[in-house]
Amino acid sequence: METNRELRGNAPIGVFDSGVGGLTVVREIMRQIPNERIVYFGDTARVPYGSKSQETVIRYSEQIVRFLRTFQVKTIVVACNTASAYALDTLEQDIDIPIIGVVRPGAKAALDVTRNGRIGVIATEATIGSQIYTEYISKLNTNVTIYGKACPLFVPLVEEGLLEDPVTDEIARRYLAELIDIDIDTLILGCTHYPLIRSTLGKIVGDRVTLVNPAYETALELKSMLQSLHLLNDDPPGLGANQYRFFVSDKAEKFVRFANSIIKYGILSAKAVNIEEY
Amino acid sequence: METNRELRGNAPIGVFDSGVGGLTVVREIMRQIPNERIVYFGDTARVPYGSKSQETVIRYSEQIVRFLRTFQVKTIVVACNTASAYALDTLEQDIDIPIIGVVRPGAKAALDVTRNGRIGVIATEATIGSQIYTEYISKLNTNVTIYGKACPLFVPLVEEGLLEDPVTDEIARRYLAELIDIDIDTLILGCTHYPLIRSTLGKIVGDRVTLVNPAYETALELKSMLQSLHLLNDDPPGLGANQYRFFVSDKAEKFVRFANSIIKYGILSAKAVNIEEY
Repeated sequence: METNRELRGNAPIGVFDSGVGGLTVVREIMRQIPNERIVYFGDTARVPYGSKSQETVIRYSEQIVRFLRTFQVKTIVVACNTASAYALDTLEQDIDIPIIGVVRPGAKAALDVTRNGRIGVIATEATIGSQIYTEYISKLNTNVTIYGKACPLFVPLVEEGLLEDPVTDEIARRYLAELIDIDIDTLILGCTHYPLIRSTLGKIVGDRVTLVNPAYETALELKSMLQSLHLLNDDPPGLGANQYRFFVSDKAEKFVRFANSIIKYGILSAKAVNIEEY
Repeated sequence: METNRELRGNAPIGVFDSGVGGLTVVREIMRQIPNERIVYFGDTARVPYGSKSQETVIRYSEQIVRFLRTFQVKTIVVACNTASAYALDTLEQDIDIPIIGVVRPGAKAALDVTRNGRIGVIATEATIGSQIYTEYISKLNTNVTIYGKACPLFVPLVEEGLLEDPVTDEIARRYLAELIDIDIDTLILGCTHYPLIRSTLGKIVGDRVTLVNPAYETALELKSMLQSLHLLNDDPPGLGANQYRFFVSDKAEKFVRFANSIIKYGILSAKAVNIEEY
């Protein structure tokens, strides 16, 4: 893929997710490259992607990419594990701007930190079922073993706001018990919601297990990619420059409430768009 | 609406839901009118309906009705609170066979049992937000007060199989506390998943509160409607008569696993269909 010559550093970064989870990726981008402008799309009308077929997830992702490109974005971040698993390869072939997903940066980081070669992955049923982390890590290194565990209650618990709560502790203890028994030393948080219960998860797996947050690793890889392409934004956006813009396919108010609990950026607004038109 | 003259008692009953929840309605129909044949459709690819617009829910419901009619069903049961709230009026105008939803039978039963006129409704955020139970009950009787409480964690807890579990107890205690404080004497289980945690709910609200199960009330109303239209099936289906048929829009295996935990009918199979073609 050749980079479009028209790309400019002060163009925004496009980020999308099936809903609100991708905001943990946005948060990391804001922290690591605070000069950047961001256009975020959350597909709140069609969430969750996890129960949909690959064909459908590709179709939805292509619509969203077309929408984001109306903002002349310089790069696109697929901040959704399911879309990264199902659609990234197709999207990469389609477009002439750089695009990155959350799975590969998370997988690479896990390989860097594991010492005993036993890596756990927790994620939604769809991501675990897709075996995407296992496939990708095995390609890079055949000497590690990946143990996947679906944790379907974590997303609803996070969305209900029970981030530090005895109920979430208890559910996490049950989900993680077998991974602890297997003696993993690395745990990939394979769903964009999970960094929000990072402290609960860390407490339960203990100090011997390193938590890998693909949101953090993705922002790091994004920064290094923009750097090498000379596409970092050198001009700090001025006041009122509309640095961060948020779009959703349904229920903007609910999105804003949740976004404000994740991103300490003050008052945030989101606009609903009819994504099926793209 | 005039009843189609071609309808015959030994035709099947069509039942649909956004996913697996409607199986609690199927279970009640099987118990109350065991001679009947049933064709069930669960829209597992597009679940949940709760986050979708009314327009979309109507479009999906119309597709499913067209699919069910290919089996020459004699009546249709909308075994989904959201679809009953959003689409039932439109569907009723469209078709020439009797159709019933779960909201009205549940609302009527609650009015029959309340003594102090304080009725609680627990349901998904969508159903509570639609105010459908409040609207319908207020039309019938202005002397009662309806208290709605969204319980977003109940569906994932049920789908995770935690039907009798300390975690479900704890979450139910939190959700129900304000309804108990308000001194309701009647509680409508306004989501088709909730009858599966009926014993937990009953334990927490105590003997003074009567639980109303719209699935049960709907099966009762269905029986009485078929009776009055002389459409009950008088011929018990023979062995191997394919009495119960299940269709889904995605992931048939997962549906079958869940269905087998609800319906004690032995081995059950489900067929995936492309519902968007209808």
